[in-house]
Amino acid sequence: MTQTAPRPTLEAVAERAGVSRATVSRVVNGAHGVREALAERVRRAVEELGYVPNQAARSLVTRRHQAVAVVAAEPETRVFADPYFAQQLRGISKELTAHDNQLVLLLTEGREDHARVGRYLAGGHVDGALVFSLHLDDPLPALVRGAGLPTVFGGRPGWDEGLDDVVYVDSDNRGGARSAVRHLAGLGRTRVAHITGPLDQTSAADRLAGFRDVRPDTDPGLVARGDFTSGGGERAMRELLDRCPGLDAVFAANDLTAAGALRVLRERGLRVPDDVAVVGFDDMLPVAEESDPPLTTVRQDIEGMGRLMARLLLRGLDGEAPEAADGAPVPAASGVILPTTLVRRATA
Amino acid sequence: MTQTAPRPTLEAVAERAGVSRATVSRVVNGAHGVREALAERVRRAVEELGYVPNQAARSLVTRRHQAVAVVAAEPETRVFADPYFAQQLRGISKELTAHDNQLVLLLTEGREDHARVGRYLAGGHVDGALVFSLHLDDPLPALVRGAGLPTVFGGRPGWDEGLDDVVYVDSDNRGGARSAVRHLAGLGRTRVAHITGPLDQTSAADRLAGFRDVRPDTDPGLVARGDFTSGGGERAMRELLDRCPGLDAVFAANDLTAAGALRVLRERGLRVPDDVAVVGFDDMLPVAEESDPPLTTVRQDIEGMGRLMARLLLRGLDGEAPEAADGAPVPAASGVILPTTLVRRATA
Repeated sequence: MTQTAPRPTLEAVAERAGVSRATVSRVVNGAHGVREALAERVRRAVEELGYVPNQAARSLVTRRHQAVAVVAAEPETRVFADPYFAQQLRGISKELTAHDNQLVLLLTEGREDHARVGRYLAGGHVDGALVFSLHLDDPLPALVRGAGLPTVFGGRPGWDEGLDDVVYVDSDNRGGARSAVRHLAGLGRTRVAHITGPLDQTSAADRLAGFRDVRPDTDPGLVARGDFTSGGGERAMRELLDRCPGLDAVFAANDLTAAGALRVLRERGLRVPDDVAVVGFDDMLPVAEESDPPLTTVRQDIEGMGRLMARLLLRGLDGEAPEAADGAPVPAASGVILPTTLVRRATA
Repeated sequence: MTQTAPRPTLEAVAERAGVSRATVSRVVNGAHGVREALAERVRRAVEELGYVPNQAARSLVTRRHQAVAVVAAEPETRVFADPYFAQQLRGISKELTAHDNQLVLLLTEGREDHARVGRYLAGGHVDGALVFSLHLDDPLPALVRGAGLPTVFGGRPGWDEGLDDVVYVDSDNRGGARSAVRHLAGLGRTRVAHITGPLDQTSAADRLAGFRDVRPDTDPGLVARGDFTSGGGERAMRELLDRCPGLDAVFAANDLTAAGALRVLRERGLRVPDDVAVVGFDDMLPVAEESDPPLTTVRQDIEGMGRLMARLLLRGLDGEAPEAADGAPVPAASGVILPTTLVRRATA
């Protein structure tokens, strides 16, 4: 028997090209969404090493299952209780169905199940993945990328390395926050406070950054930490009033936080918006419309984000722009930021 | 070239044995849950025809993916809005996770998507399926059975043919209804009305049957059709009061229906339970506890149904009884009916 040199692996190509396995996989399989400079490096490494894609692995990727996985980093109980996720899922479901792709929702009980999700994704059961990962230290994105599947993220991922290799859809959290704080300034408010979301989530960090863009010299006492819940909004509002009783406006990081703040303001006998103006974020129904008074807030198109995630993934899989189900144009960028709108109701 | 006889197919075996393709598949692949008499007929047909299982198809079935599909016949929007389904899913998720199996939820927009779900199920992506099919004329169960996968149904299926070949988990809808109506009779109520659910669902049909078991001679005017919603409960309650103003009790087919009935009784100035006693079904929280007055109802263990469905499926897949996550014994029957409990609050 003659000894043959070991066949070069996908890993070897990735190492030589200085890119991730996922990127090699996508270039080799002709998927879109890889920058040309990167793709060229991969092609050169393939040639230099004499790499031949594994036929089985290749067929898993190139054979379309007409199925797309949706993965959330949150446990099943939170996913099902979260109206925000339900709205995004609605958009995803409509778009996938319009293109005859099966929506495969992978649920977990917690982080310890993420490795199993990674195995399923790598097992050749779906053509791509739509991933919601909210927290900076979440291991899920790495597992998903390791699976080598075309992926679109919901929300800007929390890591920086290799971000231009990542496709994601997000709202303009920073710009939306700026519009909220500018609106409060336009009403003549001078002591504007901010209740943040959990700052290990990029959406919360971006909204805080937008607040600081407009009010760079804000007294640190006017910023209190919340957690996107109404209970967190109540706690933070009490803290702010104790620290800065003269504040005349609050920008809350989301509508639930604003609802909690409104309860505390009422409890303390402060009139909204006369004494304190309030602006939320999301335009989450029915919270925003049914709050007392009805909430001025920054609207994001949550269902539209879901539709766009699905559309971008399908475009990458098909190697061309599909006709969007509602005829809307499909953007070309690899990170897509959707605009927000200020919705004026009664609180500011 | 010599002409070879066509290789006998799974279909041919099914036809000769007079059973479904799914049954042949299960016997050939050593799955449990097939009655011995049927299994024997399949084995004889396999021998007579010289059938050799297709290796690829066989490996799809015998190779475990450690993944189980959950399929509901309802559109995505209804699945996500339905607290009943969410509770069953919670039980399923806990049980599958405890046995390191991935929960794969297949969502649809409507019936026209069921064929695609059937293809996914048949594609070798999951080891088995847990199926919720509520309506008698639903094509989903046939598609699922055609996929030849081990399957457990949530709720007694609406067909009769070959039912002893089907594994399902249900609550004792008929017995629970009897206990509700007997309770009302025990309170001295003589004009007991019933608001049904949608009678194309076995749960609603079984509850009506339980009502009739106890009150076989009921005036047909005392039975009104509802649809498991509070709006339907309101309409039916008005109809009943117009037709039979002297009624002194109502058994509502579920808690939402009862909540609607309570609103109409209050609107008409009737006291509950003094003038009219009311019993619901489900013990769906928070509906039942927060109704005014708090609702007497028939409790079913909804999360427990989900857990048991998953447990029965895994047992079939593993060919043995797994240790249940909570140490509870796993029943041996192929249709498992869980008991219900009457929960007394204020309305009866």
